[in-house]
Amino acid sequence: MKVIETIAGIKELRSTLKGTVGFVPTMGYLHQGHISLVKQAKSENDFSAVSIFVNPTQFGPNEDFKTYPRDMKRDLEILEPYTDIVFAPSTKEMYPEKYDTWVEVKGITDVLEGAIRPGHFKGVTTVVNKLFNIVLPTKAYFGQKDAQQVAVIKKMVKDLNMPLEIVVCPTIREPDGLAMSSRNTYLNPEQRKGAPVLYKALQKAKVMVTDEGEKSVAEIRLAMTDLIKKEPLANIEYISFADNETLKEVHQVKQPTLISMAVKFGKTRLIDNIVLG
Amino acid sequence: MKVIETIAGIKELRSTLKGTVGFVPTMGYLHQGHISLVKQAKSENDFSAVSIFVNPTQFGPNEDFKTYPRDMKRDLEILEPYTDIVFAPSTKEMYPEKYDTWVEVKGITDVLEGAIRPGHFKGVTTVVNKLFNIVLPTKAYFGQKDAQQVAVIKKMVKDLNMPLEIVVCPTIREPDGLAMSSRNTYLNPEQRKGAPVLYKALQKAKVMVTDEGEKSVAEIRLAMTDLIKKEPLANIEYISFADNETLKEVHQVKQPTLISMAVKFGKTRLIDNIVLG
Repeated sequence: MKVIETIAGIKELRSTLKGTVGFVPTMGYLHQGHISLVKQAKSENDFSAVSIFVNPTQFGPNEDFKTYPRDMKRDLEILEPYTDIVFAPSTKEMYPEKYDTWVEVKGITDVLEGAIRPGHFKGVTTVVNKLFNIVLPTKAYFGQKDAQQVAVIKKMVKDLNMPLEIVVCPTIREPDGLAMSSRNTYLNPEQRKGAPVLYKALQKAKVMVTDEGEKSVAEIRLAMTDLIKKEPLANIEYISFADNETLKEVHQVKQPTLISMAVKFGKTRLIDNIVLG
Repeated sequence: MKVIETIAGIKELRSTLKGTVGFVPTMGYLHQGHISLVKQAKSENDFSAVSIFVNPTQFGPNEDFKTYPRDMKRDLEILEPYTDIVFAPSTKEMYPEKYDTWVEVKGITDVLEGAIRPGHFKGVTTVVNKLFNIVLPTKAYFGQKDAQQVAVIKKMVKDLNMPLEIVVCPTIREPDGLAMSSRNTYLNPEQRKGAPVLYKALQKAKVMVTDEGEKSVAEIRLAMTDLIKKEPLANIEYISFADNETLKEVHQVKQPTLISMAVKFGKTRLIDNIVLG
């Protein structure tokens, strides 16, 4: 496994690689969700590459950039068995003085996470665009847990005709259903105990749609809200039912529908989703 | 010479090419300026590629998108001796329904042409980013005549770490000094006769700086303005003295200074520039 901190270093190494490259962009503090992506990247390509970069431009001014968990030594140990190349640049390497270029997907970034976190996706698309240009992957792997991020990055790649394929991998969960996330580390023991309520609410929706044939978003939302409200530490930010491609809200679960939610436990925002219908 | 109208077609062809590709993006209606770029692309690479696409997103609502001169048959005849691949997509091919992704360089696009043509450079960087992703050139060639465009595209490539080199080629001129431009065709015979005044004013600046050692922007601007005002059909839009990299206005010609101007003849805007100091 080669660990490289400079863009020039990655570009030089990349020019010598003959074969396909599977790439997993991360912000580090890796968990089983990341590892499943890296394993898939490795199994489907001649080389696997992982970036570790806590991207400042995707955090809002009141968000957790400074406190976002970091542990490079542990991350590298975790990656060692599955990874050929690690790109771990500094902020200055990615955003030198006078940096001034931005990639923005409009429309689908105005809703859901984009509505609550203005500028977030502009930071995501800009850094992912840069990472793709640096690593030049054949395929890049993202987790379904960040459903809107997946939709936004797919849209960027399609609109800008970028020469790679986006592969979406299933959300990896703790045994009690909580979706894996580096931010789960923020939860105190009590919050952690209540956090699987997001998964339970999604499973409730799944039973209603798949087993009971319920199509009414109003009915499903009500049942989900009731269930989450039984968890006293949980504060619902949104529960959304949206067309899985356009991310426009729907009233009936007919086409593939992205049911996504953000729920706060104290200051910690958790997100989760399922696609049904 | 292969003429291809689809993105998929170019991507397929590109994947078979072994060697370097020199690329010249154009809006067609080709003149000697374009040809000089294509010749250089051909001489420095294994393959030469030219795109012909009148990009709607770089025209303002009151600009000349509809009347911009087009002659595909003539363009292809001109390119034949020097060109391996022509990419001539439709507007729908480049901007399909629901297109929603934009690449924007901030800062240096706020001045000069960017100040007068809001949104122009956002359209330029977006289409050039797409074309680079489609053609995957080793080097791309641009004319110094569009000095700010050159600076903006260089900045985009640098900031987004795009894997190619930008080559800037000298402005090609008519025998009387008028910089070649597809828009010169808009000039009536009288306007055409007056149009070399832009070049004359730049030459005046060159003599003052190089031969006479003049450094004062105020003095040089005055002399240039006086000279242009002697041409009754010419209306000065701006004469700018800017740092050649940051495009910030300067008061003294010490560092490399981009002297650029826009002058209108009737409805036709002509631009020209020189770098001095």
